[in-house]
Amino acid sequence: MHGGAQLQFATIPMNILGDATVANYAVTGIWSKLAVTQAQSYAKVVEACDTECLNFTTIPTQSEWQIDNDAGYFYYCDNETVQGVEFHNVPDVVVPLVCDMSSNLLTRSIDVSKFGIIMACAQKNLGPAGVTVVIIRDDLLACEPRPYLPSILNYRLQARSNSMKNTPATFSWYMLELVLAWVKEQGGVDVMHQRAQQRSKMVYDFIDASDLYVAPVNPACRSRMNIVFDLIDENLNEKFLTEAESCGLAYLKGHKTRGGMRASMYNAMPVEGAERLVAFMREFESQR
Amino acid sequence: MHGGAQLQFATIPMNILGDATVANYAVTGIWSKLAVTQAQSYAKVVEACDTECLNFTTIPTQSEWQIDNDAGYFYYCDNETVQGVEFHNVPDVVVPLVCDMSSNLLTRSIDVSKFGIIMACAQKNLGPAGVTVVIIRDDLLACEPRPYLPSILNYRLQARSNSMKNTPATFSWYMLELVLAWVKEQGGVDVMHQRAQQRSKMVYDFIDASDLYVAPVNPACRSRMNIVFDLIDENLNEKFLTEAESCGLAYLKGHKTRGGMRASMYNAMPVEGAERLVAFMREFESQR
Repeated sequence: MHGGAQLQFATIPMNILGDATVANYAVTGIWSKLAVTQAQSYAKVVEACDTECLNFTTIPTQSEWQIDNDAGYFYYCDNETVQGVEFHNVPDVVVPLVCDMSSNLLTRSIDVSKFGIIMACAQKNLGPAGVTVVIIRDDLLACEPRPYLPSILNYRLQARSNSMKNTPATFSWYMLELVLAWVKEQGGVDVMHQRAQQRSKMVYDFIDASDLYVAPVNPACRSRMNIVFDLIDENLNEKFLTEAESCGLAYLKGHKTRGGMRASMYNAMPVEGAERLVAFMREFESQR
Repeated sequence: MHGGAQLQFATIPMNILGDATVANYAVTGIWSKLAVTQAQSYAKVVEACDTECLNFTTIPTQSEWQIDNDAGYFYYCDNETVQGVEFHNVPDVVVPLVCDMSSNLLTRSIDVSKFGIIMACAQKNLGPAGVTVVIIRDDLLACEPRPYLPSILNYRLQARSNSMKNTPATFSWYMLELVLAWVKEQGGVDVMHQRAQQRSKMVYDFIDASDLYVAPVNPACRSRMNIVFDLIDENLNEKFLTEAESCGLAYLKGHKTRGGMRASMYNAMPVEGAERLVAFMREFESQR
């Protein structure tokens, strides 16, 4: 599909809400929050949870959620890149499950049959920006879309046209094919998951044992992709970033809406990258 | 912008129709016809003209058009790629002028001040698919868009965000920059126009003087980009295409909705390409 994940935030309700008026959303970070904002133009949104008051550092257990069984669908974001929060279980709901896997599709095996829609933009683990993957269950294609939905964004029409209703971003599609071949050659998504576990565990374990760094996210829902952490002494932030950069460790600055630090480690990052990060962080701490 | 020209067919009325209920469309080929189909979900469409009964081989003079001065805008497609019909004058209307220049932007100088919106997908003269250029007059950004318009497709919000409201198809944008630099280095759009004139005149002149080929489009509105022609003896079509291909002249088959032949010659085609085409066509004819 076209236009990136954010366009899907609007496209999903327009396509599959059908006769329902309510959509159920778990808000666990800025991406799911943004998805709610977009959906509100088309549906009454019932939030299953909203952890903003906890700075998005955890995911409540499902028993604490406000579930709406009349909702057209239940939506969540599997991995929140800014806050570094990741679901490690698939929610168990009766309505169609819609999941934004923009930042962790292709990083572990998933049971596709549990989902109504899986959506992911390419530019984390799949390839360069310009293509958005939408996996939709056949029966949802029968939903009558909103009359104002542009044809190009109509899932049913795109499915019928083999996603070629108009000219796609050809280079991005081509690169996605090469990335899929690479993942297969490396041993598949299980190997991607092993590496992600290895990289992230190495960094979290080091942080948890250190006196200078702290990882604020609840260990039960820490992201394997985006390791968010802070320096206990914030005055050292600039020095940390400058010295990291000079060691070839770039883009460790946290997202502007959160601050602090973030180490993003997608499929393309070798395990050695995590080792080098830990070595640098250890050295930096030892010099204080 | 995202999603290609066809998505703009819906996005344009959603953005700028404002309080108007009518939109005025010149139908001169399959692309403007498709634009009407999409616009009908948002507006009552009054067709200024529709040349389908003439197989889209001409553009009526403006005095013959049905102009609606209460329309929210007047829409036309500057160059129809399938039928090979091109406007060589800018329509003179009182309402905002909206133009699809997907296949001829950057091929001649234009007076941008005459237009409300100029829209063009990249993949003809601008670069690889994945980016759509929208040039919009400031006052049209004040129009209140339809409430169901997704934010990513909202021209006002995209303009405010310098077109970076979400991650664009980065490779396509980068290539577009390189193409712009190349056009400048070649001498600019006036040189592009000279070459387009030279290429297309050479081929049309040869066709008009031949006994085997015929160009069906009214000379007053023949396209400089897409030269549509037929072999008087249709039985020779296959042989013509096969022999052309073996001479390195590929993709001469007309669009599936029209048949016949089409030589598309965008900015990237050197004048020598047109010379080779004519040489081949002459040789093919001489062998009959």
